[in-house]
Amino acid sequence: MRPVMEVASDMGLDPEAVIPQGRFKAKVQLDAVRQGRPRGKLVLVTGMTPTRAGEGKTTTTVGLTQAMGHLGHQVIATLREPSLGPIFGIKGGGTGTGKATVEPQDEINIHFTGDAHAVGSAHNLLAALTDNAAQRGTVPGLTPEGVTWRRVTDVEDRALRTIVTGLGGPNNAPVRETGFDIVTASEVMAILALSAGLADLRERLSRTVVGLSGDGRPVTADDVGAVGSMMSLLRYAIQPNLVQTAEGQPVLIHTGPFGNIAHGCSSVVADRLALGYADYVITEAGFGADLGFEKFMHIKARSSSLEPSAVVLVATVRAVKMHGGVRLRDLDTPNEEAVERGMSNVDHLVRMVRSFGLPIVVAINRFPSDTPGEIAAVRARAEAAGARAAVESRVVVEGGEGGVDLAKAVVEAASGDAPKVSYMYPLEASIQDKVLALAQRV
Amino acid sequence: MRPVMEVASDMGLDPEAVIPQGRFKAKVQLDAVRQGRPRGKLVLVTGMTPTRAGEGKTTTTVGLTQAMGHLGHQVIATLREPSLGPIFGIKGGGTGTGKATVEPQDEINIHFTGDAHAVGSAHNLLAALTDNAAQRGTVPGLTPEGVTWRRVTDVEDRALRTIVTGLGGPNNAPVRETGFDIVTASEVMAILALSAGLADLRERLSRTVVGLSGDGRPVTADDVGAVGSMMSLLRYAIQPNLVQTAEGQPVLIHTGPFGNIAHGCSSVVADRLALGYADYVITEAGFGADLGFEKFMHIKARSSSLEPSAVVLVATVRAVKMHGGVRLRDLDTPNEEAVERGMSNVDHLVRMVRSFGLPIVVAINRFPSDTPGEIAAVRARAEAAGARAAVESRVVVEGGEGGVDLAKAVVEAASGDAPKVSYMYPLEASIQDKVLALAQRV
Amino acid sequence: MRPVMEVASDMGLDPEAVIPQGRFKAKVQLDAVRQGRPRGKLVLVTGMTPTRAGEGKTTTTVGLTQAMGHLGHQVIATLREPSLGPIFGIKGGGTGTGKATVEPQDEINIHFTGDAHAVGSAHNLLAALTDNAAQRGTVPGLTPEGVTWRRVTDVEDRALRTIVTGLGGPNNAPVRETGFDIVTASEVMAILALSAGLADLRERLSRTVVGLSGDGRPVTADDVGAVGSMMSLLRYAIQPNLVQTAEGQPVLIHTGPFGNIAHGCSSVVADRLALGYADYVITEAGFGADLGFEKFMHIKARSSSLEPSAVVLVATVRAVKMHGGVRLRDLDTPNEEAVERGMSNVDHLVRMVRSFGLPIVVAINRFPSDTPGEIAAVRARAEAAGARAAVESRVVVEGGEGGVDLAKAVVEAASGDAPKVSYMYPLEASIQDKVLALAQRV
Amino acid sequence: MRPVMEVASDMGLDPEAVIPQGRFKAKVQLDAVRQGRPRGKLVLVTGMTPTRAGEGKTTTTVGLTQAMGHLGHQVIATLREPSLGPIFGIKGGGTGTGKATVEPQDEINIHFTGDAHAVGSAHNLLAALTDNAAQRGTVPGLTPEGVTWRRVTDVEDRALRTIVTGLGGPNNAPVRETGFDIVTASEVMAILALSAGLADLRERLSRTVVGLSGDGRPVTADDVGAVGSMMSLLRYAIQPNLVQTAEGQPVLIHTGPFGNIAHGCSSVVADRLALGYADYVITEAGFGADLGFEKFMHIKARSSSLEPSAVVLVATVRAVKMHGGVRLRDLDTPNEEAVERGMSNVDHLVRMVRSFGLPIVVAINRFPSDTPGEIAAVRARAEAAGARAAVESRVVVEGGEGGVDLAKAVVEAASGDAPKVSYMYPLEASIQDKVLALAQRV
Repeated sequence: MRPVMEVASDMGLDPEAVIPQGRFKAKVQLDAVRQGRPRGKLVLVTGMTPTRAGEGKTTTTVGLTQAMGHLGHQVIATLREPSLGPIFGIKGGGTGTGKATVEPQDEINIHFTGDAHAVGSAHNLLAALTDNAAQRGTVPGLTPEGVTWRRVTDVEDRALRTIVTGLGGPNNAPVRETGFDIVTASEVMAILALSAGLADLRERLSRTVVGLSGDGRPVTADDVGAVGSMMSLLRYAIQPNLVQTAEGQPVLIHTGPFGNIAHGCSSVVADRLALGYADYVITEAGFGADLGFEKFMHIKARSSSLEPSAVVLVATVRAVKMHGGVRLRDLDTPNEEAVERGMSNVDHLVRMVRSFGLPIVVAINRFPSDTPGEIAAVRARAEAAGARAAVESRVVVEGGEGGVDLAKAVVEAASGDAPKVSYMYPLEASIQDKVLALAQRV
Repeated sequence: MRPVMEVASDMGLDPEAVIPQGRFKAKVQLDAVRQGRPRGKLVLVTGMTPTRAGEGKTTTTVGLTQAMGHLGHQVIATLREPSLGPIFGIKGGGTGTGKATVEPQDEINIHFTGDAHAVGSAHNLLAALTDNAAQRGTVPGLTPEGVTWRRVTDVEDRALRTIVTGLGGPNNAPVRETGFDIVTASEVMAILALSAGLADLRERLSRTVVGLSGDGRPVTADDVGAVGSMMSLLRYAIQPNLVQTAEGQPVLIHTGPFGNIAHGCSSVVADRLALGYADYVITEAGFGADLGFEKFMHIKARSSSLEPSAVVLVATVRAVKMHGGVRLRDLDTPNEEAVERGMSNVDHLVRMVRSFGLPIVVAINRFPSDTPGEIAAVRARAEAAGARAAVESRVVVEGGEGGVDLAKAVVEAASGDAPKVSYMYPLEASIQDKVLALAQRV
Repeated sequence: MRPVMEVASDMGLDPEAVIPQGRFKAKVQLDAVRQGRPRGKLVLVTGMTPTRAGEGKTTTTVGLTQAMGHLGHQVIATLREPSLGPIFGIKGGGTGTGKATVEPQDEINIHFTGDAHAVGSAHNLLAALTDNAAQRGTVPGLTPEGVTWRRVTDVEDRALRTIVTGLGGPNNAPVRETGFDIVTASEVMAILALSAGLADLRERLSRTVVGLSGDGRPVTADDVGAVGSMMSLLRYAIQPNLVQTAEGQPVLIHTGPFGNIAHGCSSVVADRLALGYADYVITEAGFGADLGFEKFMHIKARSSSLEPSAVVLVATVRAVKMHGGVRLRDLDTPNEEAVERGMSNVDHLVRMVRSFGLPIVVAINRFPSDTPGEIAAVRARAEAAGARAAVESRVVVEGGEGGVDLAKAVVEAASGDAPKVSYMYPLEASIQDKVLALAQRV
Repeated sequence: MRPVMEVASDMGLDPEAVIPQGRFKAKVQLDAVRQGRPRGKLVLVTGMTPTRAGEGKTTTTVGLTQAMGHLGHQVIATLREPSLGPIFGIKGGGTGTGKATVEPQDEINIHFTGDAHAVGSAHNLLAALTDNAAQRGTVPGLTPEGVTWRRVTDVEDRALRTIVTGLGGPNNAPVRETGFDIVTASEVMAILALSAGLADLRERLSRTVVGLSGDGRPVTADDVGAVGSMMSLLRYAIQPNLVQTAEGQPVLIHTGPFGNIAHGCSSVVADRLALGYADYVITEAGFGADLGFEKFMHIKARSSSLEPSAVVLVATVRAVKMHGGVRLRDLDTPNEEAVERGMSNVDHLVRMVRSFGLPIVVAINRFPSDTPGEIAAVRARAEAAGARAAVESRVVVEGGEGGVDLAKAVVEAASGDAPKVSYMYPLEASIQDKVLALAQRV
């Protein structure tokens, strides 16, 4: 690994803005974000509808970044923080595979730079202050029954999902039925991911609803007086974290929002920071393309002017075959018919991306068991559906070199003027119209 | 502030062993601990029995360190991590006052280097795995009723003190009455503070009791298979954290154990590290001298061979007057009679320290309202009780320069051969004999 | 009202077997039940599928009893105990209307002879003993998690539906998520209703399942040693309660089982007792005919040899119109078309009863707003569907005299040899076959 | 046993006022209570400070009643209802021993006439209505946190002592930490025991406090609209229950209040009823004389003008010896010294009763192991302390005949003018003065 200060320096960051966290991680101060028209182009990596066969979205994102570097482009990847599986010994889930990884893996997977802890503390401080306010009656109309804000934990703990708090007498009150969610599902995490800066973060936290008063009026974090303390707890968590690929390209890993309310992507500030220093910023959408791509476009891109210049859809022959009806244990057996059947999922996703007006490249993440016939079938169908190209990616085995073809196709797709994005519904549409539009197109 | 790498370098640390955490904090790897006979002498700072008047133990520790530096001694302070008051906006509680502070204060007070978060995650992971084991019956004889391990939180939250977990059906079970303590009271924090290294930490964690089986046999963290994951979470938390005084002397802040089971001091590894690089290591005992000094000697010093060469007892005229019966609002009024009455507390503590065979210096932490007569009365009585000296300390207003007299007295007291410590009871005494001995002497 | 001892004496009971409970209620000892072939014929009263318009099943049962007496027949009604609405001030729900009532209404509705209290005590004693056994480990394999037995209350109390018990430390344990049901839904009530006598009651109680051991084996009331105490609590509750109609005919009101597990009828012992002393015993099925008639036949009649000689289906023009789509507020408007549409419900029920091989009479419970045309339509359709007769009943306004036509039709229908009942499925059928058969026919 | 109607008739009750409950129990209507100056004299039976040796208070009360009958006096005993031990198989606890019993024992011990069930239903109905009101906000200022009213059960059930109610969502709310007490400790039971009639009962129920509003104002059963329904549930429970001794004298058993708030005696209406029909009414105070006698005098006698004409203090040689330091297993060994020591308890109680201005007779409840010397010692000391007489009672073995000497002594003590009672404190004394006075005298 290269020292993180060297990675920062090559990337063009003012060393004053880079705060080392160990030798290989650093926080980047928000004043390093460049204002005005971004220098770089955003490439969004998304995946097929997930199956148990896996598809390798993060791995392809990292490998494409390495390949771009190989071609001499100034490139930065922006990824979300992995969630907590690693604590129980599952390695590498969120940091790539084989020769396409982000480093230092074990530090990224456990604690990292403490952002998730900060989110948890801020979330739970708000819970404590809200319960206090409800118990003491300091917010007019707010009673314990009206509180909706739950707590979060960074450990998967089934016994905390539904609990009763406040037992042991009035000093410990209020007695309430409530529970803990996992910290990645915290609304504070979602807010952190979308905030443009400290002022925006404070504004969004202030509006966070923690309960309803007796007459149905929302009670906010501001009403219970929690915002100042939450800001103290989050002031460093809003700074993007700088690490590197296994081949030394800069990677910003920042925020890991999950759950229903979240878009599942890395942060807006990380993308903006990256776009000021690189020609290409490779980022990854959460979930599968049907859900995650749409959330990226409508929740993140639209509100933050972070529209992609090209989209990469990651597919594997194995996942295509699984969509074609093959069982997990039979995936190693060549089966072109199943590929043909399963490609309907890729077809659909390619068309959906194109309906936004965006160019799309299909990355075929190569597995040893794939046959040339199967690969060819995927490529043919993908291109027939409207993909600019469908290209094999061998980054797991070969690292950046194995992604050169893919990188070239992506550069080609992203060339020319920025695409004019066609959203599914106008921003001011009613909820009903939005849902209708989504149902028809996704 | 000086860059932390510079502080580390002046202190004599190999830069390879110093891991920066931002510009002004660093972790020090355990291989930097020097083996063999320590170079330095340990000075233990303790205080009067606490009153609401305060006495300034941390401030005196820091100011004495600065003063030692002023005199040209190689000196390091070792302090415990402040607990969580600061999150709610109370500044400086654990980092000194005026010109005698540890820096960077706000980063030390909020999150610091994440050690408390790591302790909380490890503690709560053990809770989750214990509940799982009890629910699934994987540890013979362990049922949910037998579990005694609670959970911890880093936010003061009354509603979590007593809770019922596991509601909502068998998937979320076990239903148990349990609760959360504050993370500083975690037994994992106490273990971290006493561990000599990673192997010792693993050994102590393995033995941690999480419940009783039906036949009364203790069930341990090892039995529920939690130790490996806990070690992953704690591997960096066991490294001492390096910061500095406002005048640039190195300070190691590490672990903050509180509660009944804990000794309330900074860690054994921090003291050992410091003693290898400095002539004088100034450390602070938790609580008041009656409780904290005794805990330091019997729990920490004895088991870790960290015996002090001298003891400093911090007193203030105000606290002495409060012990003499003066109310808080009347402390500014001169009252030598109350000083005489209140000095019985100082007398008692000086004699107790001397009964261990240790030289003691009384530091009179100067306040503007103190009169020369009051100061003189404290000094006379303290010396009559057996203190080597009783010296004014003006470090709050003057920084290290205001502590030069104190530093000289301490150097004088600590000179000569290491004192032969006389413990209150033999290590192998029964619990009853220990309690009896303590009651008679403390 | 006639003194209850006089009612008993007219009915032919040995005064030694009658235990007065106040002046107008009495318990009848079980040795008064006559063995051998019953003297009387059982007439089962059931109703249309319930609507908010009401249909008057209990009122018709009571009025028919009064009318039978008017005609000089020896007759006894057997009814279930009303449940607890009356406590909150709703009068007469379970004791008839107008001139067709059971007396003394207010004593029947509140406490009655204490049977429901006895059931509640027995049920809750079993709960306490089960929790004790689970906590102390006296039944091998039974842990608190395995307990399925809940508690009951005789007061509608939403806050007790889901509770956590056993808080406040190990003395009060076990901590469990459980709750209270209303006492009429107690399995002990259902058992009491079906028991043939004390020995049978003891046998059924012994088999009651209170939980599962760790290996899935059922744990019973016998296993936790509760049966003897439960029998002490229930020894008088198993004796039928004697009261009278407003016109003096004997009525046995005994047990009031409701809820999923129960058949919803009065007790087996009350029916048997009555059949030994009367020519006609008029009894009422719970719920509507679709559910309640079927439950009566398959759960009660079949296992207890209490097969009816005739069935009365209570209908009202208003309920028929409601089934025909008329809103509640429009029921007073004549609407023969709606009657035609709504009669599909009566048609269906008449055919179902006849598929059991039983003669059926439809009782049209007359309301002031009914028009002759509507009445005629109901009668025509009912007879076309296979009813022996469809007869107006005016018992609400006229008492027994208003039911004379109905009584005559019922006597006619019940004359001749006992019908040969054709059940829907053989007793030994599998659960699946039973469900299938029911779905096809009901 | 004599038919209860015969007992009632001999006692002089109008048969119209007697409502049979089975053959051997009856309720007596309140209009049978005679107004004006009572005919009879009240004799209060109390006991030594309780030990595990037992003293036989109820047995002596019953035996004295039988002996009074033997002497030809018109006599009635008034006792409280036994509490619920019998349900678990402990016989006879509250109904006497040997030949001095109240009959029918087993019916008295289980359910009796349902009064405790009625109290439980009324108590729990109030709980349900209070929770409803708190949840719906129908009583201004009453929130779930303000509710103090708990629930009751007639089964000893440790797991219900502390519970959380209202789980499972807002429909079941409010979520509260509360619990169940045993029904004898119900405040409704205490109210029933003290009420002079239906109007007084209604008035007392109305004032019952169920919680506090936010501003500290008490919220009552009247505020939550529960009083009407509670009256319906309690209308028969307020009628005294008539049974008989083993020798046929009438006994009124009515109400069984226990716990801190209760006086532990039978009801005011039972005493008043009895005093109108008998020359002597023998009643029993709850607890030991120190607590129970004082409660009888200050709570019951004073407020209800039910002042005793004489007091009987029940003592046994065994209990005296236990107060003298003898262990339970050594009580059969003669030990006059221990008797002398233990008599300090009897001395004290005799003096306390006399300080009220009341004549006192000590009844020595004879055991086979008592020696003449021990008996003599008790007698001498008791008379020296101021008892009118100390007389052997052999009612356990001989029935009424064995109590003739005692009865004669009681008649003698109760002869002459009614004693002028001297209370410990004026009715209008402050709480502090009352406590002070009690501490000095009891």
